[in-house]
Amino acid sequence: MSEEASKAVRIGLLGRGTVGGAFAELVEARADAVAAATGRRPEICGTLTRADGDFGAILERSDLIVELMGGTEPARDYVLAALRAGRPVVTANKQLLAQYGEELFEAAREAGVQLRFEAAVAGVIPIVRVIQESFGVTEIAKVFGIVNGTTNYILTEMAASGASYEDALTRAKELGYAEADPTEDVNGADAAAKMAILARLAFHTPVTLDEVSYEGIEQIKPEDLAYAKELGLSLKLLGVAERREGGIGVRVFPCFLYGGHPLAPVAGPFNAVMVEAPEITEVTMSGPGAGGVQTASAVLGDVVSILGGEAPVHDTRGRLPIVADVSSSFYLHLEVADRPGVLAQVAQVLGDKGVSVKSVVQRGSGDEARLVMVVHECLESRFAEALEAIDALDVLRAPPRAIRVIQEEFV
Amino acid sequence: MSEEASKAVRIGLLGRGTVGGAFAELVEARADAVAAATGRRPEICGTLTRADGDFGAILERSDLIVELMGGTEPARDYVLAALRAGRPVVTANKQLLAQYGEELFEAAREAGVQLRFEAAVAGVIPIVRVIQESFGVTEIAKVFGIVNGTTNYILTEMAASGASYEDALTRAKELGYAEADPTEDVNGADAAAKMAILARLAFHTPVTLDEVSYEGIEQIKPEDLAYAKELGLSLKLLGVAERREGGIGVRVFPCFLYGGHPLAPVAGPFNAVMVEAPEITEVTMSGPGAGGVQTASAVLGDVVSILGGEAPVHDTRGRLPIVADVSSSFYLHLEVADRPGVLAQVAQVLGDKGVSVKSVVQRGSGDEARLVMVVHECLESRFAEALEAIDALDVLRAPPRAIRVIQEEFV
Repeated sequence: MSEEASKAVRIGLLGRGTVGGAFAELVEARADAVAAATGRRPEICGTLTRADGDFGAILERSDLIVELMGGTEPARDYVLAALRAGRPVVTANKQLLAQYGEELFEAAREAGVQLRFEAAVAGVIPIVRVIQESFGVTEIAKVFGIVNGTTNYILTEMAASGASYEDALTRAKELGYAEADPTEDVNGADAAAKMAILARLAFHTPVTLDEVSYEGIEQIKPEDLAYAKELGLSLKLLGVAERREGGIGVRVFPCFLYGGHPLAPVAGPFNAVMVEAPEITEVTMSGPGAGGVQTASAVLGDVVSILGGEAPVHDTRGRLPIVADVSSSFYLHLEVADRPGVLAQVAQVLGDKGVSVKSVVQRGSGDEARLVMVVHECLESRFAEALEAIDALDVLRAPPRAIRVIQEEFV
Repeated sequence: MSEEASKAVRIGLLGRGTVGGAFAELVEARADAVAAATGRRPEICGTLTRADGDFGAILERSDLIVELMGGTEPARDYVLAALRAGRPVVTANKQLLAQYGEELFEAAREAGVQLRFEAAVAGVIPIVRVIQESFGVTEIAKVFGIVNGTTNYILTEMAASGASYEDALTRAKELGYAEADPTEDVNGADAAAKMAILARLAFHTPVTLDEVSYEGIEQIKPEDLAYAKELGLSLKLLGVAERREGGIGVRVFPCFLYGGHPLAPVAGPFNAVMVEAPEITEVTMSGPGAGGVQTASAVLGDVVSILGGEAPVHDTRGRLPIVADVSSSFYLHLEVADRPGVLAQVAQVLGDKGVSVKSVVQRGSGDEARLVMVVHECLESRFAEALEAIDALDVLRAPPRAIRVIQEEFV
């Protein structure tokens, strides 16, 4: 590498928001360290912002493109153009990868250049590298975790203070943990994009955002969290990508975890991801889910990897079908009429549908009467039928609320 | 890579104990996946055991050497010979790296081949790769954690069941979590070797085993754990490598952690490592600390990395001095004479030495009388002086016991 010691690597930077700005600063601060590690000294040779800069001119004079503008257009065109012009690309753009990943990987493969995207998933946690490189030939069974810091902050705040969803969201915005328009965070779409990317890497099969089923946290009530506390459970928005008989399942949903679960203590705007495989048992990684400098740090790590060596190839090894129906255990919250026989009616419906009750608590009276149940694991389609049938009974004062529960002890 | 698609990579395997055997099986099971990922199909071309095989002949016909024999001799000679013959080497041998790392890295650099050792530290947790590659240009402030599964199992068992150290060790042996001769695990030497390696990687400075100060867990008493439980603390054998004013500190010691600490819930034979740096805040990784197939899996990951690309270079960036004296908070357990004025005498000594008491509990009477204190953070040398002065008082029925405490809330 010594013959390259004096050679600069010219980085074309697309986007200069919070992350882009932090990245530009970090490149300057760490230029010596990068030169020491790779023999090449990075410098920003041009920056494209909404107001300023010409993509063609920046591409022309750059050795490498860093895309931090976000959104799918024009980011997609720019990244494709850069790859096709033989420039390695680093991006933090999860939507772009979740929707157009195969097209981008194909362009990188054809051009023989690297496309890296550590910062697109789980902030500073190097989960992309670990899945691709450390566990690249491991038969991964399951990748799951907390991949959205905004919702984890909101749920933590609701559990800690008894705040309503709305108040916790307001507080998250004040602290900079939620954007002005938090829709994609709170409805699960952001986590779904990340899980599509992780599933693609873990299972070597194409997965796009539209194949991920997701639910958000907008419907969570403080009383759900209060009951959960009584039961020793904590509530998380989980992303799960797993092998299932006949294919894979990729989903995002709010879920109660028992207190001893490795993800239960992950609090505030943190992320955590677990990887399970027979030959590794399980590995858990946690850290801050976002933040300008943290994300910029992950981007710089990718730049260093590109300067240091060859690419992981991103080849798929076939196509696995998405298996939609899986088994889960559920918490069920029913606001019921305060009269005799209601429990019997509900139990009857559950029994008819083959859903088995694990525990039940009756609370309150009059307009406060409610049934809180936890049911054993069953096919989700069957539980949905039972829920529909319960909703059709004339005993409810409000629609039933159901949240998945992971309750078995972790092996 | 397609021109290499039919080419085998011949692996010379040194050692065929638990890990070596598991590795040979894993190579066979994953040969297709490795070929798909790298274009080269691995096969074991020769195995050296204590009873059988000729190193020179195996080296001659191999493309890559995997060293799983353990111990420093003859492993050191073999690894050096392999590197000098231009063969990349993967090893799981922490003692070899902690004692002769610089010599090995130098040989790898001169020959222009890779030396990889993910399995040498923290089992299946890919901490070596993450520190070298993801955080290769990050100014790491601190790497610390639980890097010995045997002792973590023993401490977990003692805390859960009230068992004595001896009984918990016996149980660990029965379960295969402790070796027949567990000396290096329980006295901290094994963890010290791993921390030397991690410090080397994190701080880009030579660190050898003899520069690491370490204590083990042989002196831990069930009553320490019982008091800890009352105080909401859990006891871990921690390895800590950190930047200090003027250099770095690398140490292994038993330590109480407050319940909310990310390492507090790490139980049984698991390992966990945290990396702290201003630009990443903190990243925590946990997983099984050992096991034949888990370790073999980490070794195979290194093999795949060698087939897939270039090496991290392991260059140091100068030499940082080891700073021995650091500040810590302590738990102090004194078996005292049951008479008036004892607390005053002890408090006087602590005050004279500038050690400030945070909390104190007096328990029992007669032969059961004891003082249990937690003191605020102070220079360890100063605390040691205070401890010596207390020991010299005529009020103790047994030598004082002190254990470090991490009690501040984590940021």
